[in-house]
Amino acid sequence: MLKNIAYYNGKTGPIEEMTVPMNDRACYFGDGVYDATMAIHHVPMHFDDHIERIYRSAGKIDIDIPMEKAEMKRMIQSLVDQVEGESLFVYWQVTRGVGMRNHPYSGAEGAPSIWAWVRPGAMRDVYGTYRCITVEDTRFLHCDIKTINLLPAVMANQRAMEAGCEEAIFHRGERVTECSHSNVYILKDGVLRTAPCDNLILPGIARAHILEICREQGIPVVEEPFTVAQMMAADEVFFSSSSALTCRIGEIDGKRVGVKDEANFAKIRDAYQEKVREECGG
Amino acid sequence: MLKNIAYYNGKTGPIEEMTVPMNDRACYFGDGVYDATMAIHHVPMHFDDHIERIYRSAGKIDIDIPMEKAEMKRMIQSLVDQVEGESLFVYWQVTRGVGMRNHPYSGAEGAPSIWAWVRPGAMRDVYGTYRCITVEDTRFLHCDIKTINLLPAVMANQRAMEAGCEEAIFHRGERVTECSHSNVYILKDGVLRTAPCDNLILPGIARAHILEICREQGIPVVEEPFTVAQMMAADEVFFSSSSALTCRIGEIDGKRVGVKDEANFAKIRDAYQEKVREECGG
Repeated sequence: MLKNIAYYNGKTGPIEEMTVPMNDRACYFGDGVYDATMAIHHVPMHFDDHIERIYRSAGKIDIDIPMEKAEMKRMIQSLVDQVEGESLFVYWQVTRGVGMRNHPYSGAEGAPSIWAWVRPGAMRDVYGTYRCITVEDTRFLHCDIKTINLLPAVMANQRAMEAGCEEAIFHRGERVTECSHSNVYILKDGVLRTAPCDNLILPGIARAHILEICREQGIPVVEEPFTVAQMMAADEVFFSSSSALTCRIGEIDGKRVGVKDEANFAKIRDAYQEKVREECGG
Repeated sequence: MLKNIAYYNGKTGPIEEMTVPMNDRACYFGDGVYDATMAIHHVPMHFDDHIERIYRSAGKIDIDIPMEKAEMKRMIQSLVDQVEGESLFVYWQVTRGVGMRNHPYSGAEGAPSIWAWVRPGAMRDVYGTYRCITVEDTRFLHCDIKTINLLPAVMANQRAMEAGCEEAIFHRGERVTECSHSNVYILKDGVLRTAPCDNLILPGIARAHILEICREQGIPVVEEPFTVAQMMAADEVFFSSSSALTCRIGEIDGKRVGVKDEANFAKIRDAYQEKVREECGG
């Protein structure tokens, strides 16, 4: 078994040694899309959902992925199968191709490039309580597309780390959008609220599963924007992603928040844990 | 003499053969800044201005370039000197470094990476008249930083090419900002107007030279936003960059515009041509 593995257009090797052409349009424009999930016991979580999403992301920026979905799944699974570890981080991206730097894409840059890698990675502890900061959301207006134009997310996440926090919660003025790499939710009076799927947030795979769980558990869901003030006054606040599942937030910008509706939060958390156990085992 | 040359952290070779580590943060986040200019007769145009700007861009995203300005100039000049051609495109970028993908940067990714290349490239014809389209500006709110998060510029420029046009003019609602890779100006009643240097536009090097020329030529300058309607009704509209200098616009979204104040436009165009001739020769 390997410690990790990387893939680029059919070539494989250790991530640390893998190279790519300088002229891949990832390098000059961030001209590509990605997806990522965790593999638990070598089973990539919500695999089909993530595969579907990267094709949707690619379509939105006019990249025609030169590989069938089934073949992409097989390729990624074969990488996962070669790496040791109960919990692995699985990442893959498709960029527009390799060609002399030029803004428009004429096709002269050849076929889109397919990148992937698998390495050990831990899920977040869903029984913890996390601290966050808020950051004005200055990102572009295409946040529904999972592109590698991620600099504002990098800067926000860095600020969170420097503040000793785990996530940065973005807001455009008063309106909360999402976090730097996760979606965010509030519970108030037994109702779950999260931002709607427009161009300001990524349609998270974990988000879709959480909304489904709420329906199964009889927790009403409102997909409408909420404000920073509503978040600060909520009964519970949590964020989700494929590696975070449901992470409860207990402090935002140094102020205590949430942690007042254990019953409903635990229903969602435990049902999601159970769902993942069913899908990936043990 | 070489046909072209690329540089990455001290290594050089033909652009088409140059590779970079997959884990360079350019590849996952677009986590870097760049600059570019033309070299005419092997003299990089406005070289000090471009060098100063990349250090300012880097500083704004917390990248500490591990090379002195004088050394960066020497390195780039040595590449320029090796490539044949009267007119060369000179490009360089600094990315945050190489490390396992993780949003925040801890320093574990090592020193920032320095990239560069030089290849033949033609200046635009400043005696031509160009066609443009308008595109809603959906970019992030850090357009003052010359980063490699360029996907919305790529998409807009592609739309311009598909429409048989040379540039895409961005506007946020009614307010014109800049083009996909150049600044934009109008002349009305003998006054030059261009967007102010805030977070919505790049402070173009050509822009600074054009404003200086206007002052020298006695053309009043107003650095205030103008609207799409004002642009459509202007006497002259033109865009500028280090490869475009002053490119007159004669058509926007299929409608005739400008080309009504030859005297003032020619003053700016000719003075800029002269300035470049003085700097780069012949």
